[in-house]
Amino acid sequence: MPPVGAGLWRSLPAHQVYGANTNVGKTIVSTVLCNAIQNQRKKAAFLKPVSTGALDDADDRHLSRFGAGTLTKCLYQFDEPVSPHLAAKQKMIPRDDDLLASIHQTLSDWARSDIDLALVETAGGVHSPGPNGNSQADLYRPLRLPIVLVADSRLGGISSSISAYESLVLRGYDIQSVLLFRDDYYQNHEYLADYFNKKSIPLVSLSAPPPRPAVENVDTQAKDEEAMYSYYRQVSAESDILRLLEELNTKNQSRIARLEEMADRAQDLIWYPFTQHQGMKSKDITVIDSAHDDYFQTFGSSQSKKSNAELRPTFDGSASWWTQGLGHGNPDLSLSAAYAAGRYGHVMFAGAVHEPALSLADRLLKTIGNPRFTKVFYTDNGSTGMEVAVKMGLRAACDRYGWDASQEKISILGLKGSYHGDTIGVMDCSEPSTFNQKVEWYRGRGHWFDFPLVKMVNGTWKVEVPAELKAELGSEDAQFESLGSVFDLEKRLSSEAAERYKTYIHSTIKDLVERHGMKFGALILEPVILGAGGMLFCDPLFQRCLTDVVRDHPELFSPNASSPKSAPSWSGLPVIFDEVFTGLYRLGRPSSASFLDVHPDIAVNAKLLTGGLIPLCTTVASQEIFDTFSSPEKSDALLHGHSYTAHAVGCTVAVDSLRTMDDMDKNGSWDGFKADWDSKSANSTSSGSSDVWSVWSQSLLQDLSRAEAVESVFGIGTVLSVSLRDAQGGGYTSTAAKGLQQKLAAGGDQFNVHSRVLGNVLYLMSSVTSKPESLQELEKLLRSALI
Amino acid sequence: MPPVGAGLWRSLPAHQVYGANTNVGKTIVSTVLCNAIQNQRKKAAFLKPVSTGALDDADDRHLSRFGAGTLTKCLYQFDEPVSPHLAAKQKMIPRDDDLLASIHQTLSDWARSDIDLALVETAGGVHSPGPNGNSQADLYRPLRLPIVLVADSRLGGISSSISAYESLVLRGYDIQSVLLFRDDYYQNHEYLADYFNKKSIPLVSLSAPPPRPAVENVDTQAKDEEAMYSYYRQVSAESDILRLLEELNTKNQSRIARLEEMADRAQDLIWYPFTQHQGMKSKDITVIDSAHDDYFQTFGSSQSKKSNAELRPTFDGSASWWTQGLGHGNPDLSLSAAYAAGRYGHVMFAGAVHEPALSLADRLLKTIGNPRFTKVFYTDNGSTGMEVAVKMGLRAACDRYGWDASQEKISILGLKGSYHGDTIGVMDCSEPSTFNQKVEWYRGRGHWFDFPLVKMVNGTWKVEVPAELKAELGSEDAQFESLGSVFDLEKRLSSEAAERYKTYIHSTIKDLVERHGMKFGALILEPVILGAGGMLFCDPLFQRCLTDVVRDHPELFSPNASSPKSAPSWSGLPVIFDEVFTGLYRLGRPSSASFLDVHPDIAVNAKLLTGGLIPLCTTVASQEIFDTFSSPEKSDALLHGHSYTAHAVGCTVAVDSLRTMDDMDKNGSWDGFKADWDSKSANSTSSGSSDVWSVWSQSLLQDLSRAEAVESVFGIGTVLSVSLRDAQGGGYTSTAAKGLQQKLAAGGDQFNVHSRVLGNVLYLMSSVTSKPESLQELEKLLRSALI
Repeated sequence: MPPVGAGLWRSLPAHQVYGANTNVGKTIVSTVLCNAIQNQRKKAAFLKPVSTGALDDADDRHLSRFGAGTLTKCLYQFDEPVSPHLAAKQKMIPRDDDLLASIHQTLSDWARSDIDLALVETAGGVHSPGPNGNSQADLYRPLRLPIVLVADSRLGGISSSISAYESLVLRGYDIQSVLLFRDDYYQNHEYLADYFNKKSIPLVSLSAPPPRPAVENVDTQAKDEEAMYSYYRQVSAESDILRLLEELNTKNQSRIARLEEMADRAQDLIWYPFTQHQGMKSKDITVIDSAHDDYFQTFGSSQSKKSNAELRPTFDGSASWWTQGLGHGNPDLSLSAAYAAGRYGHVMFAGAVHEPALSLADRLLKTIGNPRFTKVFYTDNGSTGMEVAVKMGLRAACDRYGWDASQEKISILGLKGSYHGDTIGVMDCSEPSTFNQKVEWYRGRGHWFDFPLVKMVNGTWKVEVPAELKAELGSEDAQFESLGSVFDLEKRLSSEAAERYKTYIHSTIKDLVERHGMKFGALILEPVILGAGGMLFCDPLFQRCLTDVVRDHPELFSPNASSPKSAPSWSGLPVIFDEVFTGLYRLGRPSSASFLDVHPDIAVNAKLLTGGLIPLCTTVASQEIFDTFSSPEKSDALLHGHSYTAHAVGCTVAVDSLRTMDDMDKNGSWDGFKADWDSKSANSTSSGSSDVWSVWSQSLLQDLSRAEAVESVFGIGTVLSVSLRDAQGGGYTSTAAKGLQQKLAAGGDQFNVHSRVLGNVLYLMSSVTSKPESLQELEKLLRSALI
Repeated sequence: MPPVGAGLWRSLPAHQVYGANTNVGKTIVSTVLCNAIQNQRKKAAFLKPVSTGALDDADDRHLSRFGAGTLTKCLYQFDEPVSPHLAAKQKMIPRDDDLLASIHQTLSDWARSDIDLALVETAGGVHSPGPNGNSQADLYRPLRLPIVLVADSRLGGISSSISAYESLVLRGYDIQSVLLFRDDYYQNHEYLADYFNKKSIPLVSLSAPPPRPAVENVDTQAKDEEAMYSYYRQVSAESDILRLLEELNTKNQSRIARLEEMADRAQDLIWYPFTQHQGMKSKDITVIDSAHDDYFQTFGSSQSKKSNAELRPTFDGSASWWTQGLGHGNPDLSLSAAYAAGRYGHVMFAGAVHEPALSLADRLLKTIGNPRFTKVFYTDNGSTGMEVAVKMGLRAACDRYGWDASQEKISILGLKGSYHGDTIGVMDCSEPSTFNQKVEWYRGRGHWFDFPLVKMVNGTWKVEVPAELKAELGSEDAQFESLGSVFDLEKRLSSEAAERYKTYIHSTIKDLVERHGMKFGALILEPVILGAGGMLFCDPLFQRCLTDVVRDHPELFSPNASSPKSAPSWSGLPVIFDEVFTGLYRLGRPSSASFLDVHPDIAVNAKLLTGGLIPLCTTVASQEIFDTFSSPEKSDALLHGHSYTAHAVGCTVAVDSLRTMDDMDKNGSWDGFKADWDSKSANSTSSGSSDVWSVWSQSLLQDLSRAEAVESVFGIGTVLSVSLRDAQGGGYTSTAAKGLQQKLAAGGDQFNVHSRVLGNVLYLMSSVTSKPESLQELEKLLRSALI
């Protein structure tokens, strides 16, 4: 089933009616509201998606009878007086997706007609299970209709009403009004009016309905009916109700008005990251009303002209700048975040410890699985984490080689096109480029190797040597039968290519040190893929050889160098892996270092660390790196820290995210994707290369790579990258990928696609929980755009 | 009342029993558990803090009768069958603090006796109001007892049970077990067992109790009683119950065991910020179990030896590195965070906009109230925000003056002792110091002025000129009748001191530019107080004169300089205010720039921005600074951004925090503190100086400033700073303040105090919601330590 759009119609305020508990009078309240509308010569409509006759004191039949002409509809009717999830066991169960689609369709139809208010009633309480056993609050969340909450006027109702409210809020619902019956003994309405008033939510209390007759017969039934008619006549004319209806209508209008102005207001107020504002127009700004799972709910997207719905699902094809892992609006992560906020807030970390920071350190080291790592340092984002890594690495090298860095220029070794963040210290770790060269204090400090690229061209995996390197590295590009065989380093390390790589690397470093007098303090790599630099898929053999040469030849870097004493010690240079983008399952494995079969001395993780919810970064290091800072002098310590270091909310969410992803890895959640990559490729069975796979199908890669407009493609883990042909030669300022991006943005029948381009490269990235159906639809869009 | 410690005793598992709703059988479940304990020849105790006879099907009298010898106690008894908050209207109301203290005392007494399990029963549902109208879940939160949740087996009970659970979780409670009655028709126990199993919370379902007799008389009462006895005999022997009791006991033990090992484990795994690990011992690490309001709950604190409680409140006297504003575990902020997580997760910000980011930009600009500011740029922490500010400022200056920064060295103007964060770019904005000089890539780029300090010495406010500056700035220190008069810049600007300041500043800059060829790209100041550099309270007149000279004399910086065309334009140099520490009410005002009556061109806020919950930072700038980056070239844009830029959770929490603080400012929340500073000081009535106040009392400052060991003090807003005399001369490596820190750490009768020192300076910082009683107790501790 296609993803459903969140519910918002210009001409129709549509609300979902939730009850604080069962039997609180949802249907009576709905009937009152519908009566009030109908009495104003307007039209009300009432939708009961699932009715069991058990969880409610009345239902759509009640509305038909007492609704003063209200249009009523029930999508699925069960007669057993039990929870829908039990009733559903005995009947045909509507799938949750179907249910949502039907509701959306019904409301869209009503919005096209002359309906003035639509109410969608739930069954029982907010968490009462829907037909498939999922909590209704979760089940209906993709629609995110504004909520009319019917509170509980009975003994205990203060508590159940507030708890129900909180359950809705933590799922990102907007509660627009609260209604309940007046009970002068318990006076819940007074307490709750005060409570919700503080939250700027209007509460309306109603006279309680007449008591139901003790015995039912023809006589009492008629009386009962008359009493109800009279009740509805009276209550629906109350000024509070009329004011509330006016307010619901106004809120719908003002919500749309706000969405309409947001892009303009953003133009006024926001200085956007990585954005040239000149020429930027309001219409270039995507207005995101909310998000769920893999989809933004975007306002005013082109497709919505075809429909009358104001919001449309848009696939988050950049995984929100590569952060997204477990879906937007994930209720488990929300609750984890709230728990940590409730238990700790943020607590001081220097000189203190709390459970989330400790648990995360423990779990992270286990997830990464590098036996060198013993210490975890916390910061807020990849850039600050890399600053820490650089400080660690340089200190270790200067300490071992006896360099005085205040007098000597210490550089780093890296790759061309590398990118480690936007703070000036780590900008200096990349070669001059569009990103950094206009930053006044930028001074690139290093040597950056050019390298062979992995790509699929015309259906074949290739390792392509750039023209400038052909002489050193062999003039022929190598072809591989599968991506797995590219990663078969055990085999490839004994190849001639490896020898050429090593010779080239060795002689280059030797030349830089001996002839140019350079001093190097660290080797810094983004394993496998250089992300922001343009989605460059580096030949893993080259990265492996680079690490091997650095470690096997400490004498290259200093005459003082000797082989280190004990085994898990760094040699040559501290090796820093920037896994901010590639780590923690982005490429399908817990650590991207495992693709190279290298254990770095320092590694940085962020982005997916919190499953895509909030900023947090870790820099992990070996004991020996840590010990470099040990001294009787405080001033020798790593004097780095941020206010919110190891904040409890981030650490708690990260523990949950890592656990969830670790579990998915172990319990075969990705077996479907893996099977596609196993069956069609002759993946080598040697260790270290048997687990190369992608959520993107091999056939997609093959087909796209043969397309006219495409220069090459690759897919690994959740990442798909498409290089478009560009007569002007590509690079960050290329516009070759713009056309494809626009086609995807226009979307298909089901949804639009948000994507990012890096020059002539368009990439797409899923979360680790993306559904195969969504990805298949995306593949369809890609094929139709390119083939 | 003193703050209460969270409840944890080695010898006594103590649990709070919450119900998913009223009448779910809390007392029956408690009775079953107590019976089971008593039948094992152990001892159970049952505490009913407040009993109304209304919200529960039974109470402590039921326990007395059926509890098989269970010790029972009720602290406050009301007979009206209504909510405690209504009952309390008619009787003597126990204050919430008293109630908590009584519970803690009772449990401590029981822990000293031979009790093996204690249950504290709540009334009604989790949010049913306590005697003072506060939700019980909030009221009892400071104790944070592990929870036994009695779920609801009735129709609708799945929903109410899960919502009640979520309300508890978002307040940071640990739910250790769920119990409920079996109902084979609704089968809630099956659904809920599955639900809680996924959360690793054991659920035990019990046979339902025998039905109560329809008519009550002597005869039925006897029968009923016999049926209940028989029920308890049978159920309390069920293996699930015995296993659960064993598990609760084990959990109490393992929780303590974990707390005991945490410091050691942290030593193993954590690389701490700003910490020299050599010589650091496990016992130096504070183990924080949780936090509430102004207090950490710390494990194994020295004072707890006097009592048998394992946790003790410790005042968060560094405001958790200056971040804390609205109290730890603030339920409103938790819910805001959860809402944003539920509605958005994190959504891509480049090219998009969402409500929280837009609302925050809007509100922040209003709160700061600087008419120059039009644009908001988001990052994650003060350091990254300052990197952005520096990039903005340098670009504007180089652009106007036509400097090619890749060829020329551009420096900044600042003050000695300034501090702007730990990323290398902003480290370069401070002069060489302990903090930075061992960082390999640090290269200080600027000139930093020495400056006169504001301090209270021997009861008198002084502006003290450092020895090296005496010649230029006048040899006498100035005395002031009040802190308000120090800030009476309108008056002081026409003084001779101002002339001397300006002359000195002007000639210094002229010399640096003309004779040393320096080029300056920005003026960077922390207004009023230089925080991390040692809590240096700069004479506001000096900062004002520095800004005036820079702006009034653009010709100093470049021969190309001319006065800018239109009014809200920068002149001389872009002025950057680093308000990361001093902004947003830390010093009692929305913006610390207002103390200088200066509108900077760029300002950075963080820390208090989110009320002390999660990392977020804003760099705000004038339109003219923004326009500098406008060009047809993408590469001219501010190519800076972090993965979680403008993350929805942070922005939402920040909007709430700012609103709360803005409201407090307007509604007189701090009038009590202000009155102390108004009555005793002859604050000048001239504009700009009438609102100088502190949460710390004037008499405290006066008394401390006269103490033998004290060199000087100051207090402003939430900040108190005490400079200790140090024969060795002070500075970051001084240990003069260690003794005072240790005395505060040992605490008094009520709580311990966590504080931080910067060399010979010990500072204390409250949140903006700290209670006067807490602060008074803190002042008592300070006096007894120093006087």
